[in-house]
Amino acid sequence: MTEKEKKEGLFDNVSPIDYRYREHDLLRYLSEEGFIEQKLNVEEALIVALRLFDVCDCPELYLEFMEARKEITAKEVYAEEKRIKHDIRALVNCIRKRVSDGSKPYVHMTATSFDIVDTANAARFKKAIEEILLPDLISLEKTLIEIAYREAGTIQIGRTHGQHAVPITFGFAIASYVSRLGECILSLKRLNKEQVGKFSGAVGAYNASSLFVSDPEEFEKCILEELATTEHGIKLKPAEISTQIVPPEPTIRIFAELVLIGGVLANLSRDMRHLQRTEIGEVGEEFSDDQVGSSTMPQKRNPINFENVESLWKVLVGHLTTVYLNQISEHQRDLTNSAAERTYPETIAYLVSMTRRINKTMKKLRVDKANIQRNFDLQKDLIIAEPLYIILSALDHPDAHEKVRQLTLKAQETKNPLQDLAMADNELKPYFEKMSLPQKRIISDPTLYTGIAEQKAKKVAISWAQKLNLKGCF
Amino acid sequence: MTEKEKKEGLFDNVSPIDYRYREHDLLRYLSEEGFIEQKLNVEEALIVALRLFDVCDCPELYLEFMEARKEITAKEVYAEEKRIKHDIRALVNCIRKRVSDGSKPYVHMTATSFDIVDTANAARFKKAIEEILLPDLISLEKTLIEIAYREAGTIQIGRTHGQHAVPITFGFAIASYVSRLGECILSLKRLNKEQVGKFSGAVGAYNASSLFVSDPEEFEKCILEELATTEHGIKLKPAEISTQIVPPEPTIRIFAELVLIGGVLANLSRDMRHLQRTEIGEVGEEFSDDQVGSSTMPQKRNPINFENVESLWKVLVGHLTTVYLNQISEHQRDLTNSAAERTYPETIAYLVSMTRRINKTMKKLRVDKANIQRNFDLQKDLIIAEPLYIILSALDHPDAHEKVRQLTLKAQETKNPLQDLAMADNELKPYFEKMSLPQKRIISDPTLYTGIAEQKAKKVAISWAQKLNLKGCF
Amino acid sequence: MTEKEKKEGLFDNVSPIDYRYREHDLLRYLSEEGFIEQKLNVEEALIVALRLFDVCDCPELYLEFMEARKEITAKEVYAEEKRIKHDIRALVNCIRKRVSDGSKPYVHMTATSFDIVDTANAARFKKAIEEILLPDLISLEKTLIEIAYREAGTIQIGRTHGQHAVPITFGFAIASYVSRLGECILSLKRLNKEQVGKFSGAVGAYNASSLFVSDPEEFEKCILEELATTEHGIKLKPAEISTQIVPPEPTIRIFAELVLIGGVLANLSRDMRHLQRTEIGEVGEEFSDDQVGSSTMPQKRNPINFENVESLWKVLVGHLTTVYLNQISEHQRDLTNSAAERTYPETIAYLVSMTRRINKTMKKLRVDKANIQRNFDLQKDLIIAEPLYIILSALDHPDAHEKVRQLTLKAQETKNPLQDLAMADNELKPYFEKMSLPQKRIISDPTLYTGIAEQKAKKVAISWAQKLNLKGCF
Amino acid sequence: MTEKEKKEGLFDNVSPIDYRYREHDLLRYLSEEGFIEQKLNVEEALIVALRLFDVCDCPELYLEFMEARKEITAKEVYAEEKRIKHDIRALVNCIRKRVSDGSKPYVHMTATSFDIVDTANAARFKKAIEEILLPDLISLEKTLIEIAYREAGTIQIGRTHGQHAVPITFGFAIASYVSRLGECILSLKRLNKEQVGKFSGAVGAYNASSLFVSDPEEFEKCILEELATTEHGIKLKPAEISTQIVPPEPTIRIFAELVLIGGVLANLSRDMRHLQRTEIGEVGEEFSDDQVGSSTMPQKRNPINFENVESLWKVLVGHLTTVYLNQISEHQRDLTNSAAERTYPETIAYLVSMTRRINKTMKKLRVDKANIQRNFDLQKDLIIAEPLYIILSALDHPDAHEKVRQLTLKAQETKNPLQDLAMADNELKPYFEKMSLPQKRIISDPTLYTGIAEQKAKKVAISWAQKLNLKGCF
Repeated sequence: MTEKEKKEGLFDNVSPIDYRYREHDLLRYLSEEGFIEQKLNVEEALIVALRLFDVCDCPELYLEFMEARKEITAKEVYAEEKRIKHDIRALVNCIRKRVSDGSKPYVHMTATSFDIVDTANAARFKKAIEEILLPDLISLEKTLIEIAYREAGTIQIGRTHGQHAVPITFGFAIASYVSRLGECILSLKRLNKEQVGKFSGAVGAYNASSLFVSDPEEFEKCILEELATTEHGIKLKPAEISTQIVPPEPTIRIFAELVLIGGVLANLSRDMRHLQRTEIGEVGEEFSDDQVGSSTMPQKRNPINFENVESLWKVLVGHLTTVYLNQISEHQRDLTNSAAERTYPETIAYLVSMTRRINKTMKKLRVDKANIQRNFDLQKDLIIAEPLYIILSALDHPDAHEKVRQLTLKAQETKNPLQDLAMADNELKPYFEKMSLPQKRIISDPTLYTGIAEQKAKKVAISWAQKLNLKGCF
Repeated sequence: MTEKEKKEGLFDNVSPIDYRYREHDLLRYLSEEGFIEQKLNVEEALIVALRLFDVCDCPELYLEFMEARKEITAKEVYAEEKRIKHDIRALVNCIRKRVSDGSKPYVHMTATSFDIVDTANAARFKKAIEEILLPDLISLEKTLIEIAYREAGTIQIGRTHGQHAVPITFGFAIASYVSRLGECILSLKRLNKEQVGKFSGAVGAYNASSLFVSDPEEFEKCILEELATTEHGIKLKPAEISTQIVPPEPTIRIFAELVLIGGVLANLSRDMRHLQRTEIGEVGEEFSDDQVGSSTMPQKRNPINFENVESLWKVLVGHLTTVYLNQISEHQRDLTNSAAERTYPETIAYLVSMTRRINKTMKKLRVDKANIQRNFDLQKDLIIAEPLYIILSALDHPDAHEKVRQLTLKAQETKNPLQDLAMADNELKPYFEKMSLPQKRIISDPTLYTGIAEQKAKKVAISWAQKLNLKGCF
Repeated sequence: MTEKEKKEGLFDNVSPIDYRYREHDLLRYLSEEGFIEQKLNVEEALIVALRLFDVCDCPELYLEFMEARKEITAKEVYAEEKRIKHDIRALVNCIRKRVSDGSKPYVHMTATSFDIVDTANAARFKKAIEEILLPDLISLEKTLIEIAYREAGTIQIGRTHGQHAVPITFGFAIASYVSRLGECILSLKRLNKEQVGKFSGAVGAYNASSLFVSDPEEFEKCILEELATTEHGIKLKPAEISTQIVPPEPTIRIFAELVLIGGVLANLSRDMRHLQRTEIGEVGEEFSDDQVGSSTMPQKRNPINFENVESLWKVLVGHLTTVYLNQISEHQRDLTNSAAERTYPETIAYLVSMTRRINKTMKKLRVDKANIQRNFDLQKDLIIAEPLYIILSALDHPDAHEKVRQLTLKAQETKNPLQDLAMADNELKPYFEKMSLPQKRIISDPTLYTGIAEQKAKKVAISWAQKLNLKGCF
Repeated sequence: MTEKEKKEGLFDNVSPIDYRYREHDLLRYLSEEGFIEQKLNVEEALIVALRLFDVCDCPELYLEFMEARKEITAKEVYAEEKRIKHDIRALVNCIRKRVSDGSKPYVHMTATSFDIVDTANAARFKKAIEEILLPDLISLEKTLIEIAYREAGTIQIGRTHGQHAVPITFGFAIASYVSRLGECILSLKRLNKEQVGKFSGAVGAYNASSLFVSDPEEFEKCILEELATTEHGIKLKPAEISTQIVPPEPTIRIFAELVLIGGVLANLSRDMRHLQRTEIGEVGEEFSDDQVGSSTMPQKRNPINFENVESLWKVLVGHLTTVYLNQISEHQRDLTNSAAERTYPETIAYLVSMTRRINKTMKKLRVDKANIQRNFDLQKDLIIAEPLYIILSALDHPDAHEKVRQLTLKAQETKNPLQDLAMADNELKPYFEKMSLPQKRIISDPTLYTGIAEQKAKKVAISWAQKLNLKGCF
């Protein structure tokens, strides 16, 4: 072991979430230390409830506990766990040894380990989502709304199959992400409210709490509501019915939505990085002056942030399977969900990192209008194939699609503009005579063939600014 | 090729969904023939809308179309596709060749392929879920409610880690599934309403329809509402904004919920098949007289239906990854979602098969009360460890958990009942004197230590019967 | 039900593998009918072995069986299964009822169901891979070898991060797939040899066969070797030790490799479809005269085959999870692998479909050298950034990377060629004086900066033609 | 922020691999610090090769570099990366600033970032597998071999579908894992040898190195061989052909095998924890005196180690999808694999943790022979159904399977032993008369009906001890 290896620190970590994509403000909820804080919150709420329900007649307990929890660290709990091989009992021991003998019996009283663990997990996930992830997502949504509105009129070729299709506007393309991300935000908010805690004991039948309180469901509800008064705590609903653990579905739905949000970010990233291709060049990540593009190719301007987001999405998709596998637990529970559940905070943490990164990148996105125009012009005259075919149809041409298909083949062979070929075509002459002026104009100028792209982009942008109550977008 | 191979039939299929787990009533929506019917529904709704919006002045088209669609088969469409290599254009050609020249231009007018495909898919998935899957799930829910209520008082040992823990009732255990499945049903209903269609053209900007109607969003809405009037059709909401395709998230959320439902069924199956183990024998699948248990072990009574359900869940978990991978589509769409999307109906079909199977099995579930009792008695006296420790705590024993842990070790070594050891223990004597009568009774009779299992089972059963408006459960 | 729905046929299927991506020659192995044939093969091999080991003294059995199997259809087996609810016993009954009373006892004698099922599955997967998939993959490999060799000298810009990097040749890019696919072919061949069968009875301990033969392992080996003599049969190795089922790992390794092969095809498809983008246009799928590009955009030439292959890869990735979940089976087996295993043939079938499709597409791939050149020229002079920096370094420039990075920024701003800026730079003058002639030439002509791309492409192409013993590639 | 949160340490980590399942000896390879060491190894090997190929005429460079690398820490590299936003360039800068001006140009000369990254990754994965994982797996294999051999004769009921089937021995059951794990070890060893590195530059065509050496493939090979001489380094093969990155398949195959190994451990864990069920009790995890079973149920003895291993397997199955998604990289590479690849070390680290845990647990496994016997006796007489039916068949009973099935139904109804019913059955009398003595004995004593379980268990145990050259197993 060399000098530099002697003390283990940040870079002795194995998971990139712990040395590279760490977001400091999340640790309060998502680190192991933060988890223990949340477990102490549940023990605290229990102590309050025991008093409110007159089970505990030991008035000094609460203050003793509050003093005790200030001192308890993960390190101490782990040392005790090493001795007795039970994580929650270790935590309880750390508390008990600090309170007076009269208080001792009421610590953890009637609780089973997973009353604490599942409730603490739900609380910290709910809180981290509400306080950190959702604001970040909304901030990104605001960025996208601004771009969608600002670029609502920037005409761009629409692309399907990687091929030029018919026109849209760049703002319209972004508005699609405004809508998709907006719906995800609402869905996540709704699901986050459905997170549940429990305080129903070892098999969910309130066996222990029934020994002391006449309405154990009220007792449970009280504890879960008291969580709101703890530090960094948050109120939870009780599960309608639980086993030793809460029903897994509310948590899985949350994580399925988180991965879905990751997918929206990844799709946006995919689009942006392809629009950044050398041959396309319609957008670009801002590059700082000091930034190195490549270790050997100094000219490179790589879409590294978009690539990063798509890459981390692949990690999230893997998490999804793990989360779904945890749905099955035997009888009143086996423990095969436990270790795997410890990886859940990573999903939230990666998603926060992705959201912040793409937000920062989109805020400074360079939109290169000259290149957008240049690309649009590449097949400018072929674009009119669609309106031409449709107008011909409407004017009763018996086989407009096939006719236009033949003309486009000819246009490509002869390098003549499609509209010229069409207008010179004898068969089509009577149809051109019947066309309205606006129809004729579209066929001469494909930039007019954008449907309602601009209005739609603005409408979607405005609608989401309102739905999310965002100020100052426009 | 032998005689019997000459004509390809059911058993020449490769996927078990097509030869083994086929549910006939689903084919209307989920087979390729059914898909083409739904696509024709969309073309029909388009024709109606074109007329309502005065684009089409061709009154005979509707009737011609309705005659045409009666004749069109998947076989014909595939033959045409083989020629022109485009599936939707092939369908359009099959229609067009059957209508009069004056009608021809209005067939498929302003539509892009995925206006038809995505809308037809959303419609058939929505309809299959509403008409077939949900009723099946509700029927299963009713079965579970009945069992939960009926067995609310059947005392059973609760099991955690595969170990005997403290008592519940069998009805209570089932009530947990009543609640989990019930929530899934409500969630699926809610998500199913969010399925969207689209009629916004090749890149989503209504480029084509804008050529003819002044409010293309109204036109789109009209088409999607008209779907309700088609055969086996159903009304859809329009996507707030789309590209060539609908936003993927509503569909993914549906399928994520379907896999989640599969997980609830698999978890129930896992529990039931373990309760059916030879050594446990608390429940059993009914066995018909003719049924063969094993090809060599005639005595076997295997939980084949529960095994089947858990097995198909593994297939669904795989589907989940595929569905999530389809979230990313480049720009206004690439086609890399297309072939994979064709497998989506399988998820619904497997889930229907699983639901029906487990419902049938649960309806006839044998509950062996003698074995439940026998197993309960196995560690009867150890069960009281928990209430003993908790009551001792409440009576201010300074270290009740450790004391009881020591006593249980002694009970196991000496084969003496725990309660005897406890009552004979000098240190504990003063505590026993302070115990209330009900507390003493629980320590003598562990069957009393069931908390509120019975009431909770009934409460949950009744609550879900009401929420789902089920008659005749009790 | 309309007229056309009355008879269920191909298009009443739900899985696209059964109505759209069906490859007829695979059905022999991968359909349910084909599976029953393979199960009959195992029963046949058993009958032969029983005779060879003198267990069966019934000389007419073999001929009776061979007559019987000609008549047995999946339909009949399924009808019998419906009655007795056991698939293998149903098959056995169908045989037994056709043979003489003296022969009856020896049918299926000592076998357990999964002796038949697992062995038949291994045999048909092995055979389908050996006879159909591998030849198809080798045919695709040949196509790629030919392109790699033919285009070994076609200079193309190398692309990293979607950005132009430094030059390669098109043949070199394809050679990378030659190598990757070649390694997969060798790996698949090796793994396919490792597929195992079993004939060790209900729990794998040869309990039943030990009643009649003194060396039951030899008896098992004999049966698995006799498979080679059955119709469409193939010899298998016995598992070293089995439970009721063969160890799952050899099968999983096969399917993991199949999905990996799917990934190579998908990666190639991804590259090709991006090279087909409108702005890039370096390659193209051949388009037939009748082919329709889009239902509304007649001008489109979509990379539908490459899109299809990438899409089906997403299905395969989902299968992977299912296959891995099947690894766990409790004790001497539970049946939770059974239904899921019935989907395995789909993986092979999709991969065959993908392979044939991409082979056909690559065979006719249009390589547009004018566009390749045009794109190359886009940043022609920036390409030299890398060699310039490296040569400067070698000539002891103290900070060449940073110097060149600054120059490229300046080149982009001023639109001046990088080499001009470099040669006009006073600081660099002494370095240019020290450069060798070849070095100077590369800096003036980036098409010379291709390293050993051409030789490597040819070397790889030749090497794989030899390794796979392919004739006529060059 | 409270006092205790001020300094971030172990428990501020988010991933459980970094605070809970950390194996210290792995950090050398799998931590970020370890990764940088391996990258320095590659830079070192490059310096050696540049000298051997006479590119670098700067004799002091090697010593300067060796001094420099002693000082370089991840912390410093990350600080520099923060400034210039490129991780490898940052590392290069850290080296360059420490060497003399004359040496500077040769640091990283001709290398592209992923020459370093991919090679360093392959080296550290290969080394961690060879030095740590494989010895751990072999140690576990030895433990299993010892159990298989020791318990080869311990008669146990075989279980299929969770139902008693026919007898095996406990050693036979374990031997199945000996064989499965043994094959995995050999497969992993083989795959580990196939890991490749690369030194072919920015697009894989050796563009840069070709500027200075006449045989750049030899130069690459030299670097990869020189790795063997670096600290904790290991020799690698060059990829046959690469792009900017190595072909992904060798790495994916490794990780697919790692997940497969995880599955074998999980399957073993599943079996053991079910055999530990209260009603079964055939095995048990050893429990230390201080260990707490449950926070409220002091009597519990939970199979927490087996549960942990199965739980972490669910994490590995999720990783598999991520790894497969990384197979696709566009053209000469996009970067969407990069962040996801940073999670790969976790897979190895979890597997090492699982292996060590299960090894420790199996070493101390309590095998409760009394319970094994008790369970065996439960359906002792039904066990003979199989041999009875088979022997009757062999004696030409025309319908033995059906006859025995009827008898077992009767045995269950009447609670009479099957053999008594059989021997009293008039129809069967002539068959009993024809039975051989050993056959009759098996029907009277089912413990004799174990086939070759004992021999097979020993044979497999001995065979793997030999194949892996293990001493002192027996």
